Amino acid sequence: MAEKPLILVTNDDGINAPGIRTLIEVMNQLGDVVVVAPDSPQSGMGHAITLYSTLFADPVKIDNGPQTEYSCSGTPADCVKIAIREILNRTPDLCVSGINHGSNASINVIYSGTMSAAIEAGIEGIPAIGFSLLDYGHDANFEPSKPYVKTIAEHVLKHGLPEGIVLNVNIPNLNKEAIKGIKVSRQARANWVEEFDKRQTPQGKDYYWLTGKFVNLDGGEDTDEWALENHYVSIVPTQFDLTAHHFINDIKNWNLND
Amino acid sequence: MAEKPLILVTNDDGINAPGIRTLIEVMNQLGDVVVVAPDSPQSGMGHAITLYSTLFADPVKIDNGPQTEYSCSGTPADCVKIAIREILNRTPDLCVSGINHGSNASINVIYSGTMSAAIEAGIEGIPAIGFSLLDYGHDANFEPSKPYVKTIAEHVLKHGLPEGIVLNVNIPNLNKEAIKGIKVSRQARANWVEEFDKRQTPQGKDYYWLTGKFVNLDGGEDTDEWALENHYVSIVPTQFDLTAHHFINDIKNWNLND
Repeated sequence: MAEKPLILVTNDDGINAPGIRTLIEVMNQLGDVVVVAPDSPQSGMGHAITLYSTLFADPVKIDNGPQTEYSCSGTPADCVKIAIREILNRTPDLCVSGINHGSNASINVIYSGTMSAAIEAGIEGIPAIGFSLLDYGHDANFEPSKPYVKTIAEHVLKHGLPEGIVLNVNIPNLNKEAIKGIKVSRQARANWVEEFDKRQTPQGKDYYWLTGKFVNLDGGEDTDEWALENHYVSIVPTQFDLTAHHFINDIKNWNLND
Repeated sequence: MAEKPLILVTNDDGINAPGIRTLIEVMNQLGDVVVVAPDSPQSGMGHAITLYSTLFADPVKIDNGPQTEYSCSGTPADCVKIAIREILNRTPDLCVSGINHGSNASINVIYSGTMSAAIEAGIEGIPAIGFSLLDYGHDANFEPSKPYVKTIAEHVLKHGLPEGIVLNVNIPNLNKEAIKGIKVSRQARANWVEEFDKRQTPQGKDYYWLTGKFVNLDGGEDTDEWALENHYVSIVPTQFDLTAHHFINDIKNWNLND
């Protein structure tokens, strides 16, 4: 393309998180970067949008990079919407979300604010990628992620993505030498077995904290969980047509109109 | 089954909404009903879960029906999690969510708290259905929905649903005579074109309200939008494996490891 690509960057851990700082640094090597990201952590927000509250989106300057940045009071999906409709002068060539502090592999994609931002961009026809590192810590080491983030973003800028598909990229928490490469995978079947931590308020009223244990129910060697456990970066092409097309005829055979 | 089916009821409009009251009334005809629903409206929450705040789930008595009810401070997905792990003595035979005040057809499924509750139950292996009526008003007329809700729930209790699939049912806002029947459909390709209503605080700071216009981009006669516009109740079998399986080989051909 004649001009530099326009890249929209967002996340769900908030605009000050180390993960998005790394992502901005890499994207500055590939194009003109505009950041519109939540002003506070939004993990576990799924595809929430703000219907009953006002939204703020304020210009901010956080580091010395060449990017333009806005801090937004909304969810990750809100950030993408407001960026496209109010902040950017043209449709971006790429939207990247992350780098998330923690896994968005397997069933985690459903709960992920990071991926909801990528999906929101995908709904708008923008090639989009969510990146996650399998380390929940604030002091996670994002260095080994950089070459993978750059390579995958370059390929998406070059090839584009078909309508209706975004990429879910998860990176194992390993040093550079230990990562074996990239595997294109499918979403593993897994769930969380919640363990609610039941407590009492000082006034004697029951309340709960949601905690849980991740359980991989899927032994397939073509899954994202397998790739990550075997030291590969996983890419799952992810769609937002949720129709279970293969089951349509089965329901028709229920003869619901009889 | 020997004993009556155990039915978990939830929604995203809050435990006092007329839609859930109708759903409870119909489910009381089919089994033993336990309601665990949000204490306040949660529309547009997507698949949000509560990670950074405490959860309350308090027994309540709202009407004179035989059901047991709990009012929960969390999201629709939280309600299902806490019901399964803390409130119910056994796995329910069916989970129903709704009846939502407003459409969850086409792309709305992505933002829907109603459907996130059904999907959460589906992840736990419980047959689940989200019901929505195409009327956003608090005084919507749920009467014509009742026979369809009952028929579809009865069929799911009888046939079950395969692992990984839940049903997204949308009902047109018409009187009984005008509804033509049930159509099994696919999710239409559509989006929302947001129109941010930009205002200023009394102190002169910009802020926004999110509003938007729904745009159906899909002319297919096999879609949920087509069914609804043509006076049918739409059922879309909906999955939470988001993998775009058909695109895996294309990405492999990018040769990302070269």
